[in-house]
Amino acid sequence: MVRQSLRKPDGRELILYGRDAVAVTSPVPSPNPAIHTPNAHLRWQALRGEWVAYATHRQQRTFLPPPEYNPLAPTTDPARPTELPSGGYDVAVFENLFPALTMTAHDPPRLLVPTREGHGRCEVVVFTQDAAASLGGLPLWHIALILEVWAERYRVLGEHPQIQYVYPFENRGVEVGVTLTHPHGQIYGYPFVPPIPAAELRQQRGYLDEHGRGLLEDLIEREVADGRRLLYEGPQVVAFVPAAARYPYEVWLATRRACPSVADLDEIARIDFARALKTVLLTYDALWHRPFPYVMACHQAPTDGRPHPEAHLHLEFYPPYRMPDRLKYLAGSELGAGVFTADTNPDDTAAELRAVRVEID
Amino acid sequence: MVRQSLRKPDGRELILYGRDAVAVTSPVPSPNPAIHTPNAHLRWQALRGEWVAYATHRQQRTFLPPPEYNPLAPTTDPARPTELPSGGYDVAVFENLFPALTMTAHDPPRLLVPTREGHGRCEVVVFTQDAAASLGGLPLWHIALILEVWAERYRVLGEHPQIQYVYPFENRGVEVGVTLTHPHGQIYGYPFVPPIPAAELRQQRGYLDEHGRGLLEDLIEREVADGRRLLYEGPQVVAFVPAAARYPYEVWLATRRACPSVADLDEIARIDFARALKTVLLTYDALWHRPFPYVMACHQAPTDGRPHPEAHLHLEFYPPYRMPDRLKYLAGSELGAGVFTADTNPDDTAAELRAVRVEID
Repeated sequence: MVRQSLRKPDGRELILYGRDAVAVTSPVPSPNPAIHTPNAHLRWQALRGEWVAYATHRQQRTFLPPPEYNPLAPTTDPARPTELPSGGYDVAVFENLFPALTMTAHDPPRLLVPTREGHGRCEVVVFTQDAAASLGGLPLWHIALILEVWAERYRVLGEHPQIQYVYPFENRGVEVGVTLTHPHGQIYGYPFVPPIPAAELRQQRGYLDEHGRGLLEDLIEREVADGRRLLYEGPQVVAFVPAAARYPYEVWLATRRACPSVADLDEIARIDFARALKTVLLTYDALWHRPFPYVMACHQAPTDGRPHPEAHLHLEFYPPYRMPDRLKYLAGSELGAGVFTADTNPDDTAAELRAVRVEID
Repeated sequence: MVRQSLRKPDGRELILYGRDAVAVTSPVPSPNPAIHTPNAHLRWQALRGEWVAYATHRQQRTFLPPPEYNPLAPTTDPARPTELPSGGYDVAVFENLFPALTMTAHDPPRLLVPTREGHGRCEVVVFTQDAAASLGGLPLWHIALILEVWAERYRVLGEHPQIQYVYPFENRGVEVGVTLTHPHGQIYGYPFVPPIPAAELRQQRGYLDEHGRGLLEDLIEREVADGRRLLYEGPQVVAFVPAAARYPYEVWLATRRACPSVADLDEIARIDFARALKTVLLTYDALWHRPFPYVMACHQAPTDGRPHPEAHLHLEFYPPYRMPDRLKYLAGSELGAGVFTADTNPDDTAAELRAVRVEID
């Protein structure tokens, strides 16, 4: 992997990655004309015991692009700068223009609840220069390169003393609020271990202490033995609809043995992981012959300086549909009580996905 | 309050409530022709440490009503039975035809994850016979009557040894998946304390142990002193946009002093609570001159037989909009990490709501 670090005219960092080379053939652009020092703060929601991130500068977005403008495409017309230069590169990472968390955060308001600076990092990961592509449609080497980029960002962001959790994710589809179809994901660097990974780590730690084995390792072993919900079975990586899926088409993708983070995948495991990811995504898109929306969450070891023998890298996919024309709405039971109610059986949805039979050479 | 308990032809319970009287002037109907013994089961999601409810019979809904058919209206044509008889009553409660949890649950499947019967109760609460009304538009006495119905259901369901948590809620609007506009809410009786109330109770218990005072009591005292986000201030009940709101137009409604449950409100407090509720709901609807969608969650003391000195009855409203034409999507940060990101300031959204100035005599 070749890497070139650049600075946008507004001060934001831009990093270009290429499998073999990186070449920049235009000035480094920004759709934002002025030096950019966003602010953000956190407020303590004491009743739930969680931090809420406020970035009210996001409201002041003056930049209203026309609908045909794609800020994630390489700049071709200097009068209409995008986020990326033209040139030769495969993947690009830059700081979000409207970050929920930022290292420039300062002076949190004094309120009747505890507050703190919204320190952290919000990065956009542009998966490819091809606006018409999709993550799953990229060649295997390209997906593996994206995993290498995730690994590099995990190491670099994780080294920052204020970042305790590095979280790559992808929101895909208007159904989850994404209007830009250019393939991209995001990486958040949180200044704390967020509630959901924290709950998972607590469960995993308890299981490890009690059984001397990994919770996810054991779940995976049982899913592989059962076999009915498996979507991908590689030498080191598997993907499956979990037996206790919360979303009808929920999928988990993980290494068979506990691997703490994406930075701990060796090259063989990375290719296996990329192949599993491509299999899941092409299966999703093939299911109803259209792009399948989802939230993809990457859970891995915190970077909080503590040992995490319980951590086990995995991806969770939450697709919003329960039928081709019916969304699974999160409402009273899910949002107010935290109890998911399902009217589909994971065996059945897994069977639908398995019937698609995507095979990757 | 007058109450009449009836049985539907399919075996489900129906209870009619009136302020002064209840009269039934037609046979008790059901849109479902056959005896109904639904099944449901729970699966343990070990990674998050939570139960997921499966009611796959919901898929087999054979009953597909025409769009103009309103199952929550009183039956007028015996050939097209609804859920309710004609007659004189103000509020009706019946068992959901497609419950996520049911006392008739049996034989949970044996799987590679722990399972159990999906015991519990899912009730529909029809707020009024008037299909064109709204909860907030009902007279004060009628809203107070609904609170009395909640209280009765809390006591009756809570007495059941298998129901550990009684949860009234309302989903309102197509934006949260509700297509029936006839005013109605639901009550779930869970066989465990659900994760979100459990987290809140943990936080409240820790605060009580440390400070000898209620967490919500103290938060409310500070919100009242600050005053900028208050929407309603009654002798015993207040409503406000909390300083650490997660949703842009989030509102909490609570008694000033810790009251464990809706069944512990005395008559004066109940009227105060009803007035607060009416104020919030009319404010919401007046904000953009249209019905305002939301999830309304009622959190109160568990009915698990343990003492809960930390419990403090309150309602939380989660409206899905952040602007009149923009939804706040829950995506990667919210669903996969559990961190809400806000680009609105609760002071500003509270000011918008306060500018509406709803006053109820």
